[in-house]
Amino acid sequence: MEFSAAKIAEILNGKVEGDPNVTVSNLAKIEEGLPGTMTFLANPVYTHFIYTTKASVILVNQDFIPNQPVSGTLIRVENAYTAFASILDIFTRRTSEKSGVSLLAAVSKTAKVGEDVYIGEFVCIGKNTVIGKNVRLYANCYIGDNVSIGEETTLHPGVKIYKDTVIGKNCTLHAGVVIGADGFGFAPQSENEYKKILQVGNVVIEDNVEIGSNTTIDRATLGSTRICKGVKLDNLIQVGHGVEIGENTVIAAQTGIAGSTRIGKNCLVGGQVGFAGHLVIGDNVKIGAQSGIEHNVKDGETFFGSPALEISKARRLYVYFRNFDQIIKRIYQIEKLINKKNG
Amino acid sequence: MEFSAAKIAEILNGKVEGDPNVTVSNLAKIEEGLPGTMTFLANPVYTHFIYTTKASVILVNQDFIPNQPVSGTLIRVENAYTAFASILDIFTRRTSEKSGVSLLAAVSKTAKVGEDVYIGEFVCIGKNTVIGKNVRLYANCYIGDNVSIGEETTLHPGVKIYKDTVIGKNCTLHAGVVIGADGFGFAPQSENEYKKILQVGNVVIEDNVEIGSNTTIDRATLGSTRICKGVKLDNLIQVGHGVEIGENTVIAAQTGIAGSTRIGKNCLVGGQVGFAGHLVIGDNVKIGAQSGIEHNVKDGETFFGSPALEISKARRLYVYFRNFDQIIKRIYQIEKLINKKNG
Amino acid sequence: MEFSAAKIAEILNGKVEGDPNVTVSNLAKIEEGLPGTMTFLANPVYTHFIYTTKASVILVNQDFIPNQPVSGTLIRVENAYTAFASILDIFTRRTSEKSGVSLLAAVSKTAKVGEDVYIGEFVCIGKNTVIGKNVRLYANCYIGDNVSIGEETTLHPGVKIYKDTVIGKNCTLHAGVVIGADGFGFAPQSENEYKKILQVGNVVIEDNVEIGSNTTIDRATLGSTRICKGVKLDNLIQVGHGVEIGENTVIAAQTGIAGSTRIGKNCLVGGQVGFAGHLVIGDNVKIGAQSGIEHNVKDGETFFGSPALEISKARRLYVYFRNFDQIIKRIYQIEKLINKKNG
Repeated sequence: MEFSAAKIAEILNGKVEGDPNVTVSNLAKIEEGLPGTMTFLANPVYTHFIYTTKASVILVNQDFIPNQPVSGTLIRVENAYTAFASILDIFTRRTSEKSGVSLLAAVSKTAKVGEDVYIGEFVCIGKNTVIGKNVRLYANCYIGDNVSIGEETTLHPGVKIYKDTVIGKNCTLHAGVVIGADGFGFAPQSENEYKKILQVGNVVIEDNVEIGSNTTIDRATLGSTRICKGVKLDNLIQVGHGVEIGENTVIAAQTGIAGSTRIGKNCLVGGQVGFAGHLVIGDNVKIGAQSGIEHNVKDGETFFGSPALEISKARRLYVYFRNFDQIIKRIYQIEKLINKKNG
Repeated sequence: MEFSAAKIAEILNGKVEGDPNVTVSNLAKIEEGLPGTMTFLANPVYTHFIYTTKASVILVNQDFIPNQPVSGTLIRVENAYTAFASILDIFTRRTSEKSGVSLLAAVSKTAKVGEDVYIGEFVCIGKNTVIGKNVRLYANCYIGDNVSIGEETTLHPGVKIYKDTVIGKNCTLHAGVVIGADGFGFAPQSENEYKKILQVGNVVIEDNVEIGSNTTIDRATLGSTRICKGVKLDNLIQVGHGVEIGENTVIAAQTGIAGSTRIGKNCLVGGQVGFAGHLVIGDNVKIGAQSGIEHNVKDGETFFGSPALEISKARRLYVYFRNFDQIIKRIYQIEKLINKKNG
Repeated sequence: MEFSAAKIAEILNGKVEGDPNVTVSNLAKIEEGLPGTMTFLANPVYTHFIYTTKASVILVNQDFIPNQPVSGTLIRVENAYTAFASILDIFTRRTSEKSGVSLLAAVSKTAKVGEDVYIGEFVCIGKNTVIGKNVRLYANCYIGDNVSIGEETTLHPGVKIYKDTVIGKNCTLHAGVVIGADGFGFAPQSENEYKKILQVGNVVIEDNVEIGSNTTIDRATLGSTRICKGVKLDNLIQVGHGVEIGENTVIAAQTGIAGSTRIGKNCLVGGQVGFAGHLVIGDNVKIGAQSGIEHNVKDGETFFGSPALEISKARRLYVYFRNFDQIIKRIYQIEKLINKKNG
């Protein structure tokens, strides 16, 4: 398929700057753009590439001001990143390549399977499990008993869902995800041994959630571990038993959340963050990468560091830390001066 | 099943405070308790819920002193958490729902399989492997050659066991666990290339060990990586080649232990901790979350921070760090005073 | 098989010190060495064991000077670790134990499969995928459509490869690895919701790469995420979309690299390190464990800490930090002195 700059601008409600008749048939990164491709500039770090890219069309933010000539045709839009995402959808027009139920899948007779599902090779579906229509289960997935999976949800290869899990509509779970394994609960006994606390709750994942590869979400001891609608979890994240993550919260890779902590709505959490257990984190909270959260955080606050502090304070303290040499020197100068006077 | 408060108190050797005839048929979290349910109070963080919960029966520690009226019947026990765990066992009476050997499993003719095992769909069992009685292998597990798995052990879906691994009795390995992959050993060569060091040792897991989802334990270069009896590992933990973890040690999620480090008995290790290689960590050691352990730790010590220090020192230093503003101000005041005098 | 010390010295181009006729038939760790075994001493931490080991033959570095008598025969070589690795190869003579294509594998008719491959049980291979000769795919692996896997590469059980991935020759991917899942890209919309950015790029893994268990490597939004030849990745590592890792770089477990960051050649990265996105890390860079890299790093630099600093500075600052008690005391002494004078 080929699109003219004019056509793309029309779709995106954007403004053409340059030749509106130039056409593109493919997409490219700005630094690798060739004639006939379209690219975009959203992150200012890449601005210098706009002056050398050979891409024919470049989506830019409305307020972009070039300080050198640009060879391609610009299309100004409100948000170049979002606009590019829309065009990607059109270019690649998601086609459900996979369909049908493999003869090599093991589906319980008591499972209820909706219309137009794809169930790949070596998938195992347990008793009384309900699979909604248009669900896609790739090869080697395991779905336990009494699980429910909503319409249009995709499970990539090798996802493991323990019994009693509830998954909403339009979710995407990437390869190797584990949902509903036992929470980490052991009661100390005499002689240093531990007794396992049976985990009789479950995991509930609401609609429009995306979960990255090899992320693990444990079932609750009682009640539910809950991932609310619109949440986006990256790869290799650990979600402990009884945790709740509020709507549209986004969490980067390798973060861990200990048991019973509740994270609010619309939060942004960086990678490799650790949350202690039993905390309450408000809405619209931001947490910097590698932070360690030991205490509750209020709505709208931004925290950073391990142990974490309010970010402006944390940043200031790290500046002092980096200047520790100077501070020691200042103390030494004072001591020398005092000693001289006293000497 | 329904139990009266009196009956439960009898089982737990506890003391009823309130109506001994009230009955419960289900369990609940304290904040979600409804009439007819039993709950417990162990973590003081949740104490306020005991005055609002509608649960009919509440297990509490012997020394709990309410400062407001509680509507439910209390049962006082020595340890409310442990007592609740025992009751959970009774309520859910672990029934081996799964049994038999699936026709869709691939079991080597030279494998020895014990009585009453469950082997799920698409499980693969290698040559000369020995599976003890009552073992449960869920779907899509892979068990390599010359592996031994002791009685009553459960492997959840998609666990991968490399050849020569030895697993004890009564162990639980959660979905996606990988045991026995090659240790990370490469010898530098000329021209910046690396030569792989063959890893010819194995992994030995003793009895009563529980291992969380997607945790990885590497085989030793020579000899064995060893997880001693009663150890509890959470999700997404990395155990390097040749590591030994002593009896009843408990390690939280996402911790990493580099090659050849030996951790003692009865230790408690927080989440996201990193241990350097070739260390010796004593018995009864406690390590705070996100710590970085660079040196040996003696029996009974508690460490925290990255790099880690003895905890009381670490906590004191972090207080200074948090007060860096004040410290800088004090130095500035001194300098001002001295300059004035000298001015 | 049995080898004499003389024979081993001949193979390794080493020098015998002691009885050249003593024979060994097995390998052992230095602390567990028994008569008839060979061991090695490379890490000076283990030097004291050389005086007590019962191993018959011990490989040591050319410059090793014992300060007590050693009972075994020494063989002096240029690099004891590398030499031991070579001998391991000979002792265990890698035999391709597994061969043939399982009848229980699901291989697309349009896939091209090379000679002498091993394809295990419950492996699934997609459309138009090309598998090179001598490739070994263990049980429960999933290979998507349009994937290419080069000669002599091994995928251990349960590896998941998404469509369009390119894997080179002589690579080893350990169990549970996920290659090519969607990058973590979401554009914020009105009302706090996010729109998924389709990830239409792929992952390219060059020759001689080794990837540890449960590590995840995401596909690029556009273009390729690239792992260059000779790279060694440990377990549970996260590689974001569009990342490039240069030749022969070695990265320890649980490190995370955010999207679009480029790491140079011959770098050494410790465990649990975090890299922010869009960074450029030079060649021959070293990064200490648990560091947080927020900025670009130049060729040959060594960084440590979170946030990371040049290592000699970081180490100095941590010494100050550890002596914070003393620093506070010095300030207090000065204040006391000044107050006295002014008093």
